[in-house]
Amino acid sequence: MEKENKLSRRRFLAQAGGVAVGALAISSGLSFITEDVSANGEEVQAEWPWPYEQLDPEEIRKLGHLGYYQGACCYGAFTAIMNSLKEKVGGPYKTFPVDIMRYGEGGIVGWTTACGALNGAAAAITLIAGEDGYKGIVNQLMGWYTQFPFPSDQSNEYASKHAFLVDKYKSDEVLVQSVADSPLCHVSVTRWCEESGYASGASERSERCARLTGDVAAKAVELLNEYKSTGKIITAFTPNETTESCRTCHFKGDNYDAGQFTRGKMDCEPCHGDPHS
Amino acid sequence: MEKENKLSRRRFLAQAGGVAVGALAISSGLSFITEDVSANGEEVQAEWPWPYEQLDPEEIRKLGHLGYYQGACCYGAFTAIMNSLKEKVGGPYKTFPVDIMRYGEGGIVGWTTACGALNGAAAAITLIAGEDGYKGIVNQLMGWYTQFPFPSDQSNEYASKHAFLVDKYKSDEVLVQSVADSPLCHVSVTRWCEESGYASGASERSERCARLTGDVAAKAVELLNEYKSTGKIITAFTPNETTESCRTCHFKGDNYDAGQFTRGKMDCEPCHGDPHS
Repeated sequence: MEKENKLSRRRFLAQAGGVAVGALAISSGLSFITEDVSANGEEVQAEWPWPYEQLDPEEIRKLGHLGYYQGACCYGAFTAIMNSLKEKVGGPYKTFPVDIMRYGEGGIVGWTTACGALNGAAAAITLIAGEDGYKGIVNQLMGWYTQFPFPSDQSNEYASKHAFLVDKYKSDEVLVQSVADSPLCHVSVTRWCEESGYASGASERSERCARLTGDVAAKAVELLNEYKSTGKIITAFTPNETTESCRTCHFKGDNYDAGQFTRGKMDCEPCHGDPHS
Repeated sequence: MEKENKLSRRRFLAQAGGVAVGALAISSGLSFITEDVSANGEEVQAEWPWPYEQLDPEEIRKLGHLGYYQGACCYGAFTAIMNSLKEKVGGPYKTFPVDIMRYGEGGIVGWTTACGALNGAAAAITLIAGEDGYKGIVNQLMGWYTQFPFPSDQSNEYASKHAFLVDKYKSDEVLVQSVADSPLCHVSVTRWCEESGYASGASERSERCARLTGDVAAKAVELLNEYKSTGKIITAFTPNETTESCRTCHFKGDNYDAGQFTRGKMDCEPCHGDPHS
């Protein structure tokens, strides 16, 4: 019985990923294992990173949007990716407790620190990209977020013209777009409220964050698809000039007197203005 | 063979938790399941929240400190709790991919948003406390963090007098303590550097964050121990008066013109000063 299970798992993964596994997985150093039950019946951990199959960013955008209304921003972005892989890959995804990421809502239970969609997407990226890829990919996702006008044209269009689950959404309006200049929920929400004239508790603000959740999950999948198919990280993001200028002195370094008493990659100006003026 | 496995799992959990499980688990509505293999051999998800056993905060403080040097702040706080439960409870913890939380380092791959120790501890709390408990517990942890002088006396003492793994640490100095006034890595690190005179890239700054990682994990476990034994959440944190005053107008509400164009729980003054002066 146990042997049958192992064989069927091998076959499933070979079909799903188009990769010959089994003895080959060991000899070639493939970075995932195909069994979660060892020879003596003990469960073993699936190796990090977890297996991946190319996902459709537009499908993920819709799932992230919908997922927001099931468990908010962090859960929405995370489950859009994880539940799709549960469906397409199966294996270890079948028993992963996705509720673990619910806390990321509103920048961690409403404290408005890191945008929850970023937090949830970053967790999925880390599990999938592994040691060599996660830092670079998450860095690009964070940078892209700070410069992108949310919600995207695609999200606006899905919700306003082709709403596939319109009864679940809070608005079918084409929403105003704004650039956050920050990965923080607090700043991202405030900027959009200022741009749109909607209050932070308005249904339209929730709907804006739902569309953003889909957008962030879709971008994460775009980055993962590229990395997993070519081994390369898309490096489209560059910090703005003002922040780069600040960081010539203020970086994570060893000289306190030279200004190295802080660290970070967020834009400086929105909080600090020009402290040397 | 499969039946034997199920029985042995039941016995293990009964011994580990001191709880009679099996048919009782179903009839009494206990919130965890004891098998991860169903009758037809399919894997099933362990129910949320996951089982818990009381942990020793001082042991967790040491493990968090050490874990920082294995995978930074987020991974350190997360694994201090998760690996302890893997040891004490086993079950679903045995196959959980703890590497998933590595991205939280330095406020998410160095962007200095949410302190990684908070991010990692919040994930563990969510998995363990479940729907009814996680928001309140994580909220208390976040609030406590903003007002606590890190590193704690205990962490300073372990590292300076009773170093149990002193060769792993970067300093055995009793480090200056500082209050972050914020859950953000950027602010927390900068405040400590300003207070101590150490640069952000100094070994002592890393060591401060390692001790803080232990402190945050220990506090999370203190909150979890109380909640799991009494069903109550320790509510020691209250926001400071200035922030409470700001929040009489500026909260997540429906009236833009009355100032409800933002949201959050972070202290206002460190970034905004007094914008009405």
